[in-house]
Amino acid sequence: MKPNFSLRLRVFNLNYWGIPYLSKHRAARLTRLGDFLNLESFDLALLQEVWSEQDFQYLKQKLSPTYPAAHYFRSGIIGSGLCVFSKHPIQDTTQHVYTLNGYPYMIHHGDWFCGKAVGLLVLHLSGLVVNAYVTHLHAEYSRQKDIYLAHRVAQAWELAHFIHHTSKKADVVLLCGDLNMHPKDLGCRLLKEWTGLFDAYLEAQDFQGSEEGCTMVPGNCYVSQQDLKLFPCGIRIDYVLYKAVPGLCISCKTFRTTTGHDPHNGSPLSDHEALMATLCVRHSPPQQNPSPTPGPAERSPLVSVLREAWTELGQGMAQARWWAAFASYVIGVGLLLLALLCALAARDGAREVAVLLWTPNVGLVLGAGVIYLFHIQEAKGLCRAQAELQHVLGRAREAQDLGPELEAAPLLGLQEGNGVKDQ
Amino acid sequence: MKPNFSLRLRVFNLNYWGIPYLSKHRAARLTRLGDFLNLESFDLALLQEVWSEQDFQYLKQKLSPTYPAAHYFRSGIIGSGLCVFSKHPIQDTTQHVYTLNGYPYMIHHGDWFCGKAVGLLVLHLSGLVVNAYVTHLHAEYSRQKDIYLAHRVAQAWELAHFIHHTSKKADVVLLCGDLNMHPKDLGCRLLKEWTGLFDAYLEAQDFQGSEEGCTMVPGNCYVSQQDLKLFPCGIRIDYVLYKAVPGLCISCKTFRTTTGHDPHNGSPLSDHEALMATLCVRHSPPQQNPSPTPGPAERSPLVSVLREAWTELGQGMAQARWWAAFASYVIGVGLLLLALLCALAARDGAREVAVLLWTPNVGLVLGAGVIYLFHIQEAKGLCRAQAELQHVLGRAREAQDLGPELEAAPLLGLQEGNGVKDQ
Repeated sequence: MKPNFSLRLRVFNLNYWGIPYLSKHRAARLTRLGDFLNLESFDLALLQEVWSEQDFQYLKQKLSPTYPAAHYFRSGIIGSGLCVFSKHPIQDTTQHVYTLNGYPYMIHHGDWFCGKAVGLLVLHLSGLVVNAYVTHLHAEYSRQKDIYLAHRVAQAWELAHFIHHTSKKADVVLLCGDLNMHPKDLGCRLLKEWTGLFDAYLEAQDFQGSEEGCTMVPGNCYVSQQDLKLFPCGIRIDYVLYKAVPGLCISCKTFRTTTGHDPHNGSPLSDHEALMATLCVRHSPPQQNPSPTPGPAERSPLVSVLREAWTELGQGMAQARWWAAFASYVIGVGLLLLALLCALAARDGAREVAVLLWTPNVGLVLGAGVIYLFHIQEAKGLCRAQAELQHVLGRAREAQDLGPELEAAPLLGLQEGNGVKDQ
Repeated sequence: MKPNFSLRLRVFNLNYWGIPYLSKHRAARLTRLGDFLNLESFDLALLQEVWSEQDFQYLKQKLSPTYPAAHYFRSGIIGSGLCVFSKHPIQDTTQHVYTLNGYPYMIHHGDWFCGKAVGLLVLHLSGLVVNAYVTHLHAEYSRQKDIYLAHRVAQAWELAHFIHHTSKKADVVLLCGDLNMHPKDLGCRLLKEWTGLFDAYLEAQDFQGSEEGCTMVPGNCYVSQQDLKLFPCGIRIDYVLYKAVPGLCISCKTFRTTTGHDPHNGSPLSDHEALMATLCVRHSPPQQNPSPTPGPAERSPLVSVLREAWTELGQGMAQARWWAAFASYVIGVGLLLLALLCALAARDGAREVAVLLWTPNVGLVLGAGVIYLFHIQEAKGLCRAQAELQHVLGRAREAQDLGPELEAAPLLGLQEGNGVKDQ
């Protein structure tokens, strides 16, 4: 790499809200989105909630002159909704579908059927390996009583771990998407602390957009005011995060969000705001201490967030086990009732009632069986994430026992990110 | 790394056949397995089919003086059955659960409930990063009519792709497990061609064990002779595969298998044979052409196996779509029948018959609904794997268009494995 080397990366991110038959003005918004992306000619456009593959195919065709490379991440029953359009050739792709993603019987929420995932595409730009990740985590339907909190924390951990394991040869890491978490939420802190990713909104040298960088704002005509009653300014749940290896400086020169309408002051492109970031990567001159080893003060937020996540997952696991136990009681009672109904059906007087009750009872036993199996699987998934956190915490303890801070950093896996941030 | 550097790695692999209540002499075999592993003190012991977590905990406790590090890979409803015991500290772990793994309604086969996966552990040995993978793919219940072929090929692809993306900083890659594939099966060729892994049985300088390295042999008293009637010598479906980065020589000094009984000529440890390999890694002296770029002759097996896999996945996808369409017809007919039964129940004469038929009909509609959703998801999973293969094939075509072979290798991702093999 030449000393005067520099790479400019213009990135676009949007949760497009593309639910067939349900999302308002979907076709019109898609057309305007395509026009806007063609006009702006970003390096990368990363989208979430493109639920219909036809919508992706439409965009792919429309954008092909400006963005010759495109990828749609297929998963689950409905799909992950994730896709990406790139001006540069995509070298490689892969994806990871989150182990836990809500409950199949919460049909009105629908997340379980989507197969929420993280998609990765590898680009080679100016001699650098750029790993770009796009994701969409489980929605938060109630902040006061969030039954999906443990799942979202497990997803944040899996996302962080997936980035950790797949970006070992990447010079630049970029993560865009709808995390469905506020900046100070547990999962968001866990993700940032474990990966060492920087938040483009917080780091931007020049920011223009909605108040506090919110990505769901009350001024957007598609946003339900009811959903934002606790947050009159809006909420920030969509992110552009980035980092580079030591030896490279990465900085966010500009960061823009739309503000409740499209970039030309027309009606909005989605119920979420679009994010547009310009990142600059350049050679970092040799420094005496180019990547300062984190001392106890720097390391403690990671250890404390790992502990917090461990506890949250434990609570989720207890809940999952309670539901599995409850379902097994229901199965037992249902089977007893079925035996009773068989006995009743043999008598002339109660035959009709017995036969009528047979259907709901069989349904009850089968339904409880499925719920039992589901929660057993849920408990296993949470236990797996907890064991991984436990392992990392164990290594942190070993590092502390070793004493010198120099030993601690590699054990905590902090050596491979956190590059040099250029303000 | 010093020029005279050398690393010796002794590895043990066994599909332990630990189905609670069903596998014969499970407790006795577990005790003998623990004794043997303690006695031999391998660097790594990788096990499959440890379905009961109690069995893992028993082994963990028993082996802790010799193998202080252990990990159990949890997934699915039953579990992945995978675990590992290591003499050396485990730096990091992760796992990937295969998207496709049989059918939930094939309860007697049970694979779907297991959550088959690949587990990764990262070790730091003598300054080298060693990525050790352990896996167990979907079983083959009928070689003549293998309804799981497309799933196993998709699993082999996901396994290869997972290794490809997670081993970019590894000096040595080791894959052990029960692949449920014969050496020349499509999935096995795909895995070896895409990852560049060498087969320890084929490369071993000193081999002792069963005829043709078979890992299920007729001499094993737990093996059903019916299962081996097409293969009187036995079958080879368990593997130790390895590779190293250029600059390192890796070789298999010794390779042993048990031969239908345990290593002390007692009754066998499992229905599979155990594999024991001694791998040597040493510094490779600088060569003029240390990692020869594959020419057309070397590259064509990869392209042809990618095409073959693409076709196989396409057939699986057509089959999945046929089942989804069939299930949707059944739902339609079932709903019509339900309407008819409602009408019949209104009449006095046929009320009892109508009520009696209600239960199986509701079951039919619900069952067909679940089958429909399952096969839609299956088709999506196969489509995803096919798209990934298509992308790699596209890059191969671009590489051929570019002409010089030097351009082709990196595009095909062949630059990062295939190290130097020392015979």
